[in-house]
Amino acid sequence: MPALSARRLADLLGPMDDRGPAYREITDRLRLMIVDGRVADGSRLPSERDLAAALGVSRTTSARVYAELRAAGLTRSRQGSGNTVALPRFASSTSSLVPMSDDSDTIAMTYSAWPGPPGLARAFEVAAAGLPGLLSTTGYLPDGLPRLRCLLADRYTEEGLPTDPDQIIVTNGAMGAISLVARALARPGSRTLVEGVTYPHGADAFAAGVGRLSALPVSERPWDGLDDALAAGRHDAAYFVPDFHNPTGAVMADHERGHWARALSRRHVVPVVDESLRDVNLDGIAMPPVFATYDPRAILIGSSSKSYWGGLRVGWLRAPQSSIVPLLQARMMDDLGSSAFDQLVLCELLEDGGQTLAASRARSRAARDHLLEQLAIQLPQMRATCPTGGLNLWLTLPERVGTALVADGTDHGLLLTAGSRFFPGAPAAGERHLRLPFTQSHEVLTEAVRRLSLAWECVSSGTATAGTAPAIDMIA
Amino acid sequence: MPALSARRLADLLGPMDDRGPAYREITDRLRLMIVDGRVADGSRLPSERDLAAALGVSRTTSARVYAELRAAGLTRSRQGSGNTVALPRFASSTSSLVPMSDDSDTIAMTYSAWPGPPGLARAFEVAAAGLPGLLSTTGYLPDGLPRLRCLLADRYTEEGLPTDPDQIIVTNGAMGAISLVARALARPGSRTLVEGVTYPHGADAFAAGVGRLSALPVSERPWDGLDDALAAGRHDAAYFVPDFHNPTGAVMADHERGHWARALSRRHVVPVVDESLRDVNLDGIAMPPVFATYDPRAILIGSSSKSYWGGLRVGWLRAPQSSIVPLLQARMMDDLGSSAFDQLVLCELLEDGGQTLAASRARSRAARDHLLEQLAIQLPQMRATCPTGGLNLWLTLPERVGTALVADGTDHGLLLTAGSRFFPGAPAAGERHLRLPFTQSHEVLTEAVRRLSLAWECVSSGTATAGTAPAIDMIA
Repeated sequence: MPALSARRLADLLGPMDDRGPAYREITDRLRLMIVDGRVADGSRLPSERDLAAALGVSRTTSARVYAELRAAGLTRSRQGSGNTVALPRFASSTSSLVPMSDDSDTIAMTYSAWPGPPGLARAFEVAAAGLPGLLSTTGYLPDGLPRLRCLLADRYTEEGLPTDPDQIIVTNGAMGAISLVARALARPGSRTLVEGVTYPHGADAFAAGVGRLSALPVSERPWDGLDDALAAGRHDAAYFVPDFHNPTGAVMADHERGHWARALSRRHVVPVVDESLRDVNLDGIAMPPVFATYDPRAILIGSSSKSYWGGLRVGWLRAPQSSIVPLLQARMMDDLGSSAFDQLVLCELLEDGGQTLAASRARSRAARDHLLEQLAIQLPQMRATCPTGGLNLWLTLPERVGTALVADGTDHGLLLTAGSRFFPGAPAAGERHLRLPFTQSHEVLTEAVRRLSLAWECVSSGTATAGTAPAIDMIA
Repeated sequence: MPALSARRLADLLGPMDDRGPAYREITDRLRLMIVDGRVADGSRLPSERDLAAALGVSRTTSARVYAELRAAGLTRSRQGSGNTVALPRFASSTSSLVPMSDDSDTIAMTYSAWPGPPGLARAFEVAAAGLPGLLSTTGYLPDGLPRLRCLLADRYTEEGLPTDPDQIIVTNGAMGAISLVARALARPGSRTLVEGVTYPHGADAFAAGVGRLSALPVSERPWDGLDDALAAGRHDAAYFVPDFHNPTGAVMADHERGHWARALSRRHVVPVVDESLRDVNLDGIAMPPVFATYDPRAILIGSSSKSYWGGLRVGWLRAPQSSIVPLLQARMMDDLGSSAFDQLVLCELLEDGGQTLAASRARSRAARDHLLEQLAIQLPQMRATCPTGGLNLWLTLPERVGTALVADGTDHGLLLTAGSRFFPGAPAAGERHLRLPFTQSHEVLTEAVRRLSLAWECVSSGTATAGTAPAIDMIA
């Protein structure tokens, strides 16, 4: 079992906000780090005495922190060996390990993901007609179904970016594309630049293995401060989300794209551009061109999960011809290819004249408006601007209570993702934020806001308790 | 562009066999290293003078090597900057990058993979009836479809290994499980033990990122020499293929399993056990129990690709409860889950009373026997024992000509995987071997052996040429 030193733990926890009792703040942060895996299951925690010394708190406080974690079922203690992280095991259900919106009475506001839209069942049915052709092959498609690659290449070409099907690799969702690119680019000592607020699993993929991250400072726009960050050290790649940015919903403007393209190009930093929300354009706004129009070296990433359905594990990347072979070589030690039939289904969706996408957008638009309305009615203290696309609101809280809200929310049957998860370089900045997906029915959204306001009342009145969070922190 | 020093290249090439002209041997080996990515696309090769000095050959020889590589379309040379690896780009077809058995007149003997067996289309049809239930969820299944996890757990339990559904994670094929485990176990400096002859993408996954490999010595059985290897240094994991071993077809005996379990357990080495071929039991032999019966710490890996169809990207792992949460946490930065519908199809296949599996086995058995017969008729010089399971023969060549055969084969429209790819620690040992999948019709197998005998004639008479190999070396 790995032992975690008090000094290392203090570094991980960061400076406290000194809001409310210290034991509560330390407990909440430590719980989140356990749940999202930053403190590994099985780790031996420092003694109460060492923890108190490292954090500059009393023994009473550190003892209370450990008592709370034990009570929440996240650690166990044994005579002589102190406290050890021990995530709960569950009998035979997925729901407690990984929150799924369709399980039990709990409302999971952790996934930006809808059930399948109207039109999807029809696409499966039409695709089934193409099944015999598919079954007559080995089904291994390491770079993707040729028909799908052609359709995707044509889309880019029609958008003004001439693209050959050979520049497309079909992947296991956008996340499969991000992790493939991260692995292919990773060299010992290589460093990737990410936005100060960003999609956490994307940033995590670049931090895994031998890679290192640097995050832009947290600023008004996710794309401010690039020049200083680039000047501060060599970077190999930059991962960013310019289209309906996850989680803020912002869209990178034309002049920002131009500036980024020039700056990255000058310093030979490869742009890895997550465009998986580009088609979730709820208000039909005019979008600036895709990033490779500004910088032909860019690797663009797209996905069917946000536009259509998360159960289709089909994403893709579009890269310069010269990057394709190394990416495929890296893939051979990863998964050998994506689901053949899912790719056929996506072909049908791309060729249905846009009706499924339109239905999906209409549903999201109505849900967004409903959630904004409910917040205005039930929780006017919280500010959210209306995003023109994407699948979530980005809330600004009136106080630095993000972690406490998430912890208390679980007691009210509401699973939330802590804002801190979206700030790779400065988790404390997330205390003022919460991401609220609106991919639920109006009834569920109304109820979710009701539960959130209950949690808010508890937190502001100081009667909040530490709930039991799920063991896996999945964010889609 | 990275430059490759002559010294490093000489190390990579290893000692020559001095069989036939030196330029041919050097060219063949260098070509393979380029095609399988060990020498990266874009690398600048050493000068003719430096190469000659490092290899102890004449300038004429090194010049000829570079001329051959240029003629084969694998490098280009420019005034002043010497020779650079430049893999061919193709217009708009997958076939030249990644050999697919169903493309063109070329016969690809690189995949152990059949078209879909009889019964698979029916499973898709039955699964479609379950689609509405699936579409009413978000479709994200980070640990897998609960029904599938129950079915898989029940199978292990029936085999004598009590298993809870929570111990199963559904992955993107066996390869997805291997790479997930490799990433989850990887620590800076961690080391994985692999067999001296093994499935190359599996070993590669453990060598990627921060991991390091050590390979057992090449011996009579893939599992000989464990004790000495373990005594030589600390290992974190051991990856091995005990059931119809890929590529040799051998089955790890009961006493070997017991010995491995005790030895690995004593030294705290985690067994990562690739059982993806276990169900491809062509002769219905009695198999020793699955490895976790011997060592409960083992992580078992299974797959639908070999038993049913490669287009279903559904594999799984079975692990001790305590490993599940860290594995799922590692997965969150990888792909978020596997195809929902493919998982439903596999449920139907597992519940069809074994008829699809039986049909698939019968087809493989007949093909195996036909290939053995054709080899006996057309190429009696080559020895192959009859494997009791799996999807390929493992040939022993009468001379050390493996690489030359592969190179010449492409000129006869026959794609082969060089034996050297299966020997991670001693590629030269592969010169005496060739893996021949029998996942083709009888007619194609007959023709493949004819082409192989043509290549053999050219190689033995010294009239072989260097063919054009595909740029991606995928082995299934």
